[in-house]
Amino acid sequence: MIPRYARPEMTAIWEPATKFRIWFEIEAHACDAMADLGVIPRENAEAVWKAKDVEFDVARIDEIEAVTRHDVIAFLTHLSEIVGSDAARFVHQGMTSSDVLDTTLNIQLCRAADILLADMDRLLAALKARALEHKDTVRIGRSHGIHAEPTTMGLTFARFYAEMDRNRNRLEKARWEIATGAISGAVGTFANIDPAVEEHVCEKLGLRPEPISTQVIPRDRHAMFFATLGVVASSIENVATEIRHMQRTEVLEAEEFFSAGQKGSSAMPHKRNPVLTENLTGLARLVRSAVTPALENVALWHERDISHSSVERGIGPDATIHLDFALNRLAGVIEKLVVYPQHMLDNMHKFRGLVMSQRVLLALTQKGVSREDAYSLVQRNAMKVWEEGRDFKEELLADEDVRKALSVEEIEEKFDLGYHTKHVDTIFARVFGES
Amino acid sequence: MIPRYARPEMTAIWEPATKFRIWFEIEAHACDAMADLGVIPRENAEAVWKAKDVEFDVARIDEIEAVTRHDVIAFLTHLSEIVGSDAARFVHQGMTSSDVLDTTLNIQLCRAADILLADMDRLLAALKARALEHKDTVRIGRSHGIHAEPTTMGLTFARFYAEMDRNRNRLEKARWEIATGAISGAVGTFANIDPAVEEHVCEKLGLRPEPISTQVIPRDRHAMFFATLGVVASSIENVATEIRHMQRTEVLEAEEFFSAGQKGSSAMPHKRNPVLTENLTGLARLVRSAVTPALENVALWHERDISHSSVERGIGPDATIHLDFALNRLAGVIEKLVVYPQHMLDNMHKFRGLVMSQRVLLALTQKGVSREDAYSLVQRNAMKVWEEGRDFKEELLADEDVRKALSVEEIEEKFDLGYHTKHVDTIFARVFGES
Amino acid sequence: MIPRYARPEMTAIWEPATKFRIWFEIEAHACDAMADLGVIPRENAEAVWKAKDVEFDVARIDEIEAVTRHDVIAFLTHLSEIVGSDAARFVHQGMTSSDVLDTTLNIQLCRAADILLADMDRLLAALKARALEHKDTVRIGRSHGIHAEPTTMGLTFARFYAEMDRNRNRLEKARWEIATGAISGAVGTFANIDPAVEEHVCEKLGLRPEPISTQVIPRDRHAMFFATLGVVASSIENVATEIRHMQRTEVLEAEEFFSAGQKGSSAMPHKRNPVLTENLTGLARLVRSAVTPALENVALWHERDISHSSVERGIGPDATIHLDFALNRLAGVIEKLVVYPQHMLDNMHKFRGLVMSQRVLLALTQKGVSREDAYSLVQRNAMKVWEEGRDFKEELLADEDVRKALSVEEIEEKFDLGYHTKHVDTIFARVFGES
Amino acid sequence: MIPRYARPEMTAIWEPATKFRIWFEIEAHACDAMADLGVIPRENAEAVWKAKDVEFDVARIDEIEAVTRHDVIAFLTHLSEIVGSDAARFVHQGMTSSDVLDTTLNIQLCRAADILLADMDRLLAALKARALEHKDTVRIGRSHGIHAEPTTMGLTFARFYAEMDRNRNRLEKARWEIATGAISGAVGTFANIDPAVEEHVCEKLGLRPEPISTQVIPRDRHAMFFATLGVVASSIENVATEIRHMQRTEVLEAEEFFSAGQKGSSAMPHKRNPVLTENLTGLARLVRSAVTPALENVALWHERDISHSSVERGIGPDATIHLDFALNRLAGVIEKLVVYPQHMLDNMHKFRGLVMSQRVLLALTQKGVSREDAYSLVQRNAMKVWEEGRDFKEELLADEDVRKALSVEEIEEKFDLGYHTKHVDTIFARVFGES
Repeated sequence: MIPRYARPEMTAIWEPATKFRIWFEIEAHACDAMADLGVIPRENAEAVWKAKDVEFDVARIDEIEAVTRHDVIAFLTHLSEIVGSDAARFVHQGMTSSDVLDTTLNIQLCRAADILLADMDRLLAALKARALEHKDTVRIGRSHGIHAEPTTMGLTFARFYAEMDRNRNRLEKARWEIATGAISGAVGTFANIDPAVEEHVCEKLGLRPEPISTQVIPRDRHAMFFATLGVVASSIENVATEIRHMQRTEVLEAEEFFSAGQKGSSAMPHKRNPVLTENLTGLARLVRSAVTPALENVALWHERDISHSSVERGIGPDATIHLDFALNRLAGVIEKLVVYPQHMLDNMHKFRGLVMSQRVLLALTQKGVSREDAYSLVQRNAMKVWEEGRDFKEELLADEDVRKALSVEEIEEKFDLGYHTKHVDTIFARVFGES
Repeated sequence: MIPRYARPEMTAIWEPATKFRIWFEIEAHACDAMADLGVIPRENAEAVWKAKDVEFDVARIDEIEAVTRHDVIAFLTHLSEIVGSDAARFVHQGMTSSDVLDTTLNIQLCRAADILLADMDRLLAALKARALEHKDTVRIGRSHGIHAEPTTMGLTFARFYAEMDRNRNRLEKARWEIATGAISGAVGTFANIDPAVEEHVCEKLGLRPEPISTQVIPRDRHAMFFATLGVVASSIENVATEIRHMQRTEVLEAEEFFSAGQKGSSAMPHKRNPVLTENLTGLARLVRSAVTPALENVALWHERDISHSSVERGIGPDATIHLDFALNRLAGVIEKLVVYPQHMLDNMHKFRGLVMSQRVLLALTQKGVSREDAYSLVQRNAMKVWEEGRDFKEELLADEDVRKALSVEEIEEKFDLGYHTKHVDTIFARVFGES
Repeated sequence: MIPRYARPEMTAIWEPATKFRIWFEIEAHACDAMADLGVIPRENAEAVWKAKDVEFDVARIDEIEAVTRHDVIAFLTHLSEIVGSDAARFVHQGMTSSDVLDTTLNIQLCRAADILLADMDRLLAALKARALEHKDTVRIGRSHGIHAEPTTMGLTFARFYAEMDRNRNRLEKARWEIATGAISGAVGTFANIDPAVEEHVCEKLGLRPEPISTQVIPRDRHAMFFATLGVVASSIENVATEIRHMQRTEVLEAEEFFSAGQKGSSAMPHKRNPVLTENLTGLARLVRSAVTPALENVALWHERDISHSSVERGIGPDATIHLDFALNRLAGVIEKLVVYPQHMLDNMHKFRGLVMSQRVLLALTQKGVSREDAYSLVQRNAMKVWEEGRDFKEELLADEDVRKALSVEEIEEKFDLGYHTKHVDTIFARVFGES
Repeated sequence: MIPRYARPEMTAIWEPATKFRIWFEIEAHACDAMADLGVIPRENAEAVWKAKDVEFDVARIDEIEAVTRHDVIAFLTHLSEIVGSDAARFVHQGMTSSDVLDTTLNIQLCRAADILLADMDRLLAALKARALEHKDTVRIGRSHGIHAEPTTMGLTFARFYAEMDRNRNRLEKARWEIATGAISGAVGTFANIDPAVEEHVCEKLGLRPEPISTQVIPRDRHAMFFATLGVVASSIENVATEIRHMQRTEVLEAEEFFSAGQKGSSAMPHKRNPVLTENLTGLARLVRSAVTPALENVALWHERDISHSSVERGIGPDATIHLDFALNRLAGVIEKLVVYPQHMLDNMHKFRGLVMSQRVLLALTQKGVSREDAYSLVQRNAMKVWEEGRDFKEELLADEDVRKALSVEEIEEKFDLGYHTKHVDTIFARVFGES
């Protein structure tokens, strides 16, 4: 995990103190369930809750672990130091370390997903606001990096909104995938603990009981979770790439926000670098790099091997922390993006009207000009624009052969931007709903 | 695509003839919609349907493409050869090649998903049947490849069932992801074609209109699709790994089916290789290899660049064809898997009763023996089993110190397999529903 | 493998006929070695060579395999049909199928590497020629997509040359990695065949004997091979990305060659798409996708499992065929790339002289102007350029405060392009050697 | 980076203090070179070296960076606090931040490679020692997890030695790849700094000057570096997988060392888990996950974009630290691996002599028995072993039809283990050299 690409709220999920707190809750709820079943005395179960508001001493637990070489035992020892060894004696009874560890991991991932969903909401709000703001800001659409037909900046924001909205939906499904807990014992048979304990603990912690587990919760769930993060990261790269293109010197249709006081901004006004979106491009690669190891984690040997564990110690925090950071960074970039509508028009007119050549060609054929003739009519005027910098519309208007087929009004109409934007409202209604 | 790992039904989806058939349907339905809008004459639209049952001549289309260097134009030319140039003159009007190509790709992926879902049903049926068959077939559960506690073969099949059922659900979602079509023109503005055409074509072809597209359908959808295939493949590897372990000489708890007449089977009866599941392990790697390029395909430049296309020409057929093959191969393996319950018992008893040592340890402490004493009581008997090959239960019964704490019945009970299988029905009810 | 991205020479390596030819050579050379050792009669060994110039009947071999279900046996049967069963009776004696299969795969990979090396030579020649041609063609260097300082087009070609030259060197090493053969029997102990046979066969076929094999040649070699192809592919993407940027409408510093007759080129002269380099970007993703499965292939179980085989049936042909195609496509693109030096100058001057602002700032401070003062001097002139479209040099010359520190000559010098290109020859000498 | 999988020596390379120390050396050597060129006064260059043995105050630098928002400027400011602003005034003159940052990264990677090479030496020594120790320890070779023919434990160690020796060689090449430095300015033209500075600094720091750079050192070098780490990691997984298999309960041919006092070891002597090699399997996945983002880092925009930076902040430390840890952990596992030769023999004889069935079959045919007859002779005896647990050799000796073809001595010879180990010395000489 790279600290400079981390936000405190997400980082906190992965800190030892949080982990121990979740461990405590699992153990304490399990005691309640066992008391309900009459397996352990009610007063012992109740006594465990004395630690409810105590802050666990991470250093002390580490100290104990250095001796016992077992993290869960170290924690339980510390817990008994807090609630008393008598109260603690039934804690963890019939349970396996993995019952605690795996359920905890899923809780951490659920909480991480909740933050990511909130991040996504911020990003969606920003994209929607900018889409509405620039609904009618015309710019040239490009295929292959080459001018094609006009579109609007609002449509660009709107399609990113739609993409991120899909990602929000995917994140919800991904959260659902890993919202399970398991307290099923060494090989998942509940030999030493009643399934009712699992049910109670899961209910209290907002999880579904894993229908069938082994020693561990099956890792296809986590694979799906991280694969989804990889898709979200790729969409971030998609948006970042658009902005990087818009900011390049020759295009300059938008810029990442540059605070007035930022050094160098006005002595070298041309040198404002899209470093945030470049950074997002790199972070997307990092988050995506979690996908393959997560897929490789699925095939464990028999009822479990522990190969997945070291992988998850890495990708669990790293992928969620960096994605959280990236979503927020992107939201900030969108919120404050400086858009240059005039540059958009300037760019569109770089080859004075040539982007309309296809419409003219079509119009000529529709007027009965043969394909070959129409082609050569357009061509001879287009070449004057291309080679001599003339204005395409003016050339057409001055071309008698063209005028035989098309009236002035008809030619003018081919250069009407409204032709291209007439369905923007329809599309916006599809994306944002009727308003 | 590797022909030996391909099944005809799936391969057919990716053949030129299928592609052209889908192109035709898109174009013909689009003509209908344009006729409804009054944009083209009804009779022309109707005339196009003359090609409805005609088999397109792939060689002829290739021939034309060699000249025009454009696949869609080549097809349209061939179509006009069939329906007549007059009928054909309004076909594709206002459309862009990508409208046809992208909508077609999604139809192909939907059809592929349908086959994969059917494959999954076959696999699920096999897993369920074998789970029920071996619900009570006791075998040792293993963590880290080491004997842990007893479980049953039925639970193993049941957990694979549950995992594949999750995958079925994921496949349905993945299908939903790419069940969209787009007929929105060069940059997605519907400048040259009414959105009603897109709606009509999509409805006829079982797709949802893509709410907002550019020249192409956004590739986060496809990324999610292929990522899901990668998860399914990883689960296949998971099942395959289990079987490979079961079949290894020293374990021999199951074998891939070996037909009686298969050469070498009885002259070297020990040498039956789990080649099908090894092959599945490799195929899982191949299918997974589609995930990263699919993720890299998401960030296209502006309204589209064509970098995704070559990737999809590879991973589209390859990942679906090989996954289809793998699911069927795995279903066959499960259906015919030869299970050896006696070997399971033999393996479990390899260290005569030692797998029960933990239960004995627990029982002693519950009877008030101190942890240290209980530990050394168990240890001294365990070592006799480990080093001298004695029987653990007999040693315990013969150990007076143990007998002071535990009665014969209590000791016997610790070796009762029913203790471990008592919740199998509960778990089965969770997985398969109450029966 | 995608046929449209395949060249015949490379494809031929992976065809059955080639495979059988290599199998034959291995078997025939092995017979010679065994005759040398006196293990089989010399005349039998010699008789096998009767098939030396015979074309094997692939269909016939397939027919036999359909019965025997074993490819090597099918081939040997066909071979005995050609040379006579008496001559053939000692063929393959003491050998294992993998001896033939693995040695063959490595020969195929070596041949593939030879083609790739030749491809690289073509590409290097093209890059060098264009580098020399455009050694002094000035263009703006860009960091973050933003204008930074002048460089030359020749330096761009030269750095791609240097990168590809490194890749050539890596390809040689990768070829060396897999230039081994193994004829060592079922578990690599040479129990049934003398190591001298392996040595003889390898010498004849241009391979080194694998020092220690199991049933198979170790797969770390192949992993290194495919990882190297992945690096080469990434470099292709690097060059392709540069060209795609240069061709985008607003930049237009270069274009992929567009033949005069190519339809649409002159009616829509602005619409020439960099489809070849976009395609190369996609092909790079495809080739790279072989890396991870190749890495996953390394860890086989014990003396071999066959999971690697299906992977290699895919990535072996696919990665080499597509990389071969990509290298040639890229060479063609470079050879014929249309470069626009005037556009390069136009772009550089887009913000009339502003790219020199840093040199001016530095010059002022070196003349004793404080950092703060120098900054505000540059700033006030820069902003006039930025906001009002003035010429930076003229503004400076007209600024009395600037002129107090810098003479006309000194200001002029700051705009001298020669300042930036003075070390181009030094760099060229480093890259191409002294000339 | 996961602290528990980190060793201090490698971690130190990636700490801020190390980074600043390298920055200092680059800057100070650059000053020397500039003084040599007469560009800056000699005394200033000398004065900078006052900071040679000073420990930089990381907290202070962070404090300055919080204001300047630029790490290199913050460092230079701190440096001037140490050596005096007069001495410091020429430091970094004509240089770009990337000159320092990129050269530093490569120095860090070189140092990391040096540690990895030393790790590899330790591992190689361990593998060689164990290979020699178990040169003649016979165990069954397995293909597909199924018993095939005898081999020796020494050959297993020897092949891992050979594989790791190849990896050592690859690591050396990978180190060579990134052993370059660049001090070439904003776009690599040396406009503001003489190439002699680069040459001097590189010489002093043990690097080669990068022949042609842009603002950055080309990333194909780093891609190759991390791809190589991925191959090494895969080989670690290969060795780890073998040990995990050997330790599984039913095989038990070896165990990871288990200290006498380790809790649980003797009360549950069967339950010693190969957790170290399972952990290594996971770490291999983590290290491999650096490969794809490193490949994706190659294609930067024009003279540089900064997308690679965040990726390298992650994979630079993570991949080297975890690989260093993994190599050492594996060396420790090999050094102390507990090998059980008796269990190897027991396993080999599990199906009493059946592994020799192929040799018997071959012997019969060589004695003129037809293939069919030989097959059925072997088969009928093999089935008695398989189904009734008889001893294969005894059955053969008692089979009159077999005896007609083979003498007692001939049958006995087929069961001679020496037949399989006769070339072990040859192979060892190949791997370790003649001794």
